[in-house]
Amino acid sequence: MSRTRLEVFSDAVFAVAITLLALNLAVAGPGHGPLLHQVADHWPSFVAYLISFMTIGLIWVNHHALVQNVAVVDRTLALLNLVLLVFVVLIPADTATVAKYLALGGQDARVAVLLYAAAFMGMGFSFAGIFEWTLRSGRLRQPLPKRARWKARLRFGVASVLYLAAVAVAFVSPPVALAIIAAVPVYYIFERLEVVGSPAGDRQQ
Amino acid sequence: MSRTRLEVFSDAVFAVAITLLALNLAVAGPGHGPLLHQVADHWPSFVAYLISFMTIGLIWVNHHALVQNVAVVDRTLALLNLVLLVFVVLIPADTATVAKYLALGGQDARVAVLLYAAAFMGMGFSFAGIFEWTLRSGRLRQPLPKRARWKARLRFGVASVLYLAAVAVAFVSPPVALAIIAAVPVYYIFERLEVVGSPAGDRQQ
Amino acid sequence: MSRTRLEVFSDAVFAVAITLLALNLAVAGPGHGPLLHQVADHWPSFVAYLISFMTIGLIWVNHHALVQNVAVVDRTLALLNLVLLVFVVLIPADTATVAKYLALGGQDARVAVLLYAAAFMGMGFSFAGIFEWTLRSGRLRQPLPKRARWKARLRFGVASVLYLAAVAVAFVSPPVALAIIAAVPVYYIFERLEVVGSPAGDRQQ
Amino acid sequence: MSRTRLEVFSDAVFAVAITLLALNLAVAGPGHGPLLHQVADHWPSFVAYLISFMTIGLIWVNHHALVQNVAVVDRTLALLNLVLLVFVVLIPADTATVAKYLALGGQDARVAVLLYAAAFMGMGFSFAGIFEWTLRSGRLRQPLPKRARWKARLRFGVASVLYLAAVAVAFVSPPVALAIIAAVPVYYIFERLEVVGSPAGDRQQ
Repeated sequence: MSRTRLEVFSDAVFAVAITLLALNLAVAGPGHGPLLHQVADHWPSFVAYLISFMTIGLIWVNHHALVQNVAVVDRTLALLNLVLLVFVVLIPADTATVAKYLALGGQDARVAVLLYAAAFMGMGFSFAGIFEWTLRSGRLRQPLPKRARWKARLRFGVASVLYLAAVAVAFVSPPVALAIIAAVPVYYIFERLEVVGSPAGDRQQ
Repeated sequence: MSRTRLEVFSDAVFAVAITLLALNLAVAGPGHGPLLHQVADHWPSFVAYLISFMTIGLIWVNHHALVQNVAVVDRTLALLNLVLLVFVVLIPADTATVAKYLALGGQDARVAVLLYAAAFMGMGFSFAGIFEWTLRSGRLRQPLPKRARWKARLRFGVASVLYLAAVAVAFVSPPVALAIIAAVPVYYIFERLEVVGSPAGDRQQ
Repeated sequence: MSRTRLEVFSDAVFAVAITLLALNLAVAGPGHGPLLHQVADHWPSFVAYLISFMTIGLIWVNHHALVQNVAVVDRTLALLNLVLLVFVVLIPADTATVAKYLALGGQDARVAVLLYAAAFMGMGFSFAGIFEWTLRSGRLRQPLPKRARWKARLRFGVASVLYLAAVAVAFVSPPVALAIIAAVPVYYIFERLEVVGSPAGDRQQ
Repeated sequence: MSRTRLEVFSDAVFAVAITLLALNLAVAGPGHGPLLHQVADHWPSFVAYLISFMTIGLIWVNHHALVQNVAVVDRTLALLNLVLLVFVVLIPADTATVAKYLALGGQDARVAVLLYAAAFMGMGFSFAGIFEWTLRSGRLRQPLPKRARWKARLRFGVASVLYLAAVAVAFVSPPVALAIIAAVPVYYIFERLEVVGSPAGDRQQ
């Protein structure tokens, strides 16, 4: 399979999902109180929007770095990639659910954040699975030495572990679980995935 | 016509359709009972989401394998491709209909699954039509020997036949019809379309 | 400007618009009468869906043929292309309006079909404008001889003239206006735009 | 990072955002008065649609000119680009808000136009930030002489300054603020960004 087509399809899914996120931000319209109050009451939507946007954005950056270093894009990778996208596509709906229930607190807020964390966890594990598969099947263009493999696994695995923690924490404190979810894209902003997206790769056009 | 542009356009349609599927998963929001119950009652949406997602995903993989092996992308192929996309674009709406009516049972569930199966059947026959046309017009880059042609037709035709069966079965048992529809992407996960997406093709970047 | 980027952006807009068309096909859901009746009452939606889908699809095919033969994609062409897309993006909303009002007849049906025809007319004239500009600015890769120019103008102009007729006819008979609109993509299916999308262009990969 | 992938992803986001704009144009449907009156009452939607469409369209043209002249697309640029897209994605929702509240006047209209202007301001400053970063990090393919830099900053900065003015003016007169916002794409239609999208760049395919 052509790498370009895998990337175009994935990028289009990432782009549509990231743009649909903002549909939750539309206010109800006239007859629902002063607009300023509606917008102020909408703060959970903005928080959820920003977290989801940056997470999908960073997954897109990492996806690029990973696929760029794969020598052969075959049917198995295309299928693993579809599993990743199953979770990416869930994010706009789960973001809307968090936006609706976060401020209400109680059991519903716990369930909403749990669903949200679960979608991200599925995304994290799918991504780690793709990386593991490329490592084991020896399809990386620049094979990693043994030690570097564990370092890379650790770096990619951090997200999955944090999302797993967020799922558990959601039962106790939805805001703390949200903070953990928000921390993941922040982590990847500062953590360059050097082992995969090598400086050489970055410099290529 | 440039193959790239046919692929970019088709991939974008596949990507938008696959992402719109999840819009059906959004819950109604506060005032409609506990969130946990709303989510639990939503199970037909999740089942329909997974079936539609994997089917569109596999059609995308197969579409790639087929177009990659076509030597010349001309106006006729572009038109046949539009007919395929007419049915792909119907899938999010038909998925929503199944999600709304499946759990209710009775005549409405039968009609909903029938519409759903009919959209997939249209997609299957369009795809088989594109394959047949590329075979007959001698536009494959690697022409198939006579015997391989029948094997390939069989492999591509399986989906259309199964969808036709699902349409018929929908009158009797919607759940069985759904199971047949769900079986098609599972079949294509394990059935490599070797005659079209040849190993050589897979290995190419 | 890179031709590729103009094409990717335009193709994405065409693809999103064509996929949003089907949102009008979703039924209201349980509590609105038997599903079979809802679907049967939905026939104007299906008619409008098919007309809009095939029209956007054919515009995409023609857009490709035209852009492919332009030697230089500059800022002016990018702006003219945006004007074309202003009308393309209107089509899903106008398709929904026709679907809602066609069966009701009377003044509302006339206004709905008028809006629908006007969007297509804008699209047709924008497209003719782009073609005229490429002709006059001498930017075609294969310059057309004088006689071929008039032939090409005629071929591209047919759509605009038909849409203008549909706008006029909409005041008298919405169904006849719709039939005229539906005739345009059928015309372009059989009319190869040879002067622009030359056989040589078609044969290129 | 590959420039192509940055462009494909950004173009897809621009394309989806620009197409979602038109969702606001759909009328409420039968039972809400004569269609002609509904359409006439919809004029703020059309005004907001045209302003948002042309602004996103021109940002797309400028984005292309800027990215085309960057020698190396690295992780930092990808992140800055995501910040730009955060604001682009907000535009359909803010356009809908303006459409709903503009004609009502009063405090709500002021807030609606303020939010709208703020999204554009964020977009303008993000874009200026990307330009500043490419200048300082010396990543332009054709480095600018000192004097040309200030000229270029001025040209890119005009939009941000105008949007800042629109934010301030929105408190006093929403229509004047809207007029300022509408003036920006008109300015960029006539102002060729020669220093960045050089004639050489324009001529390249």
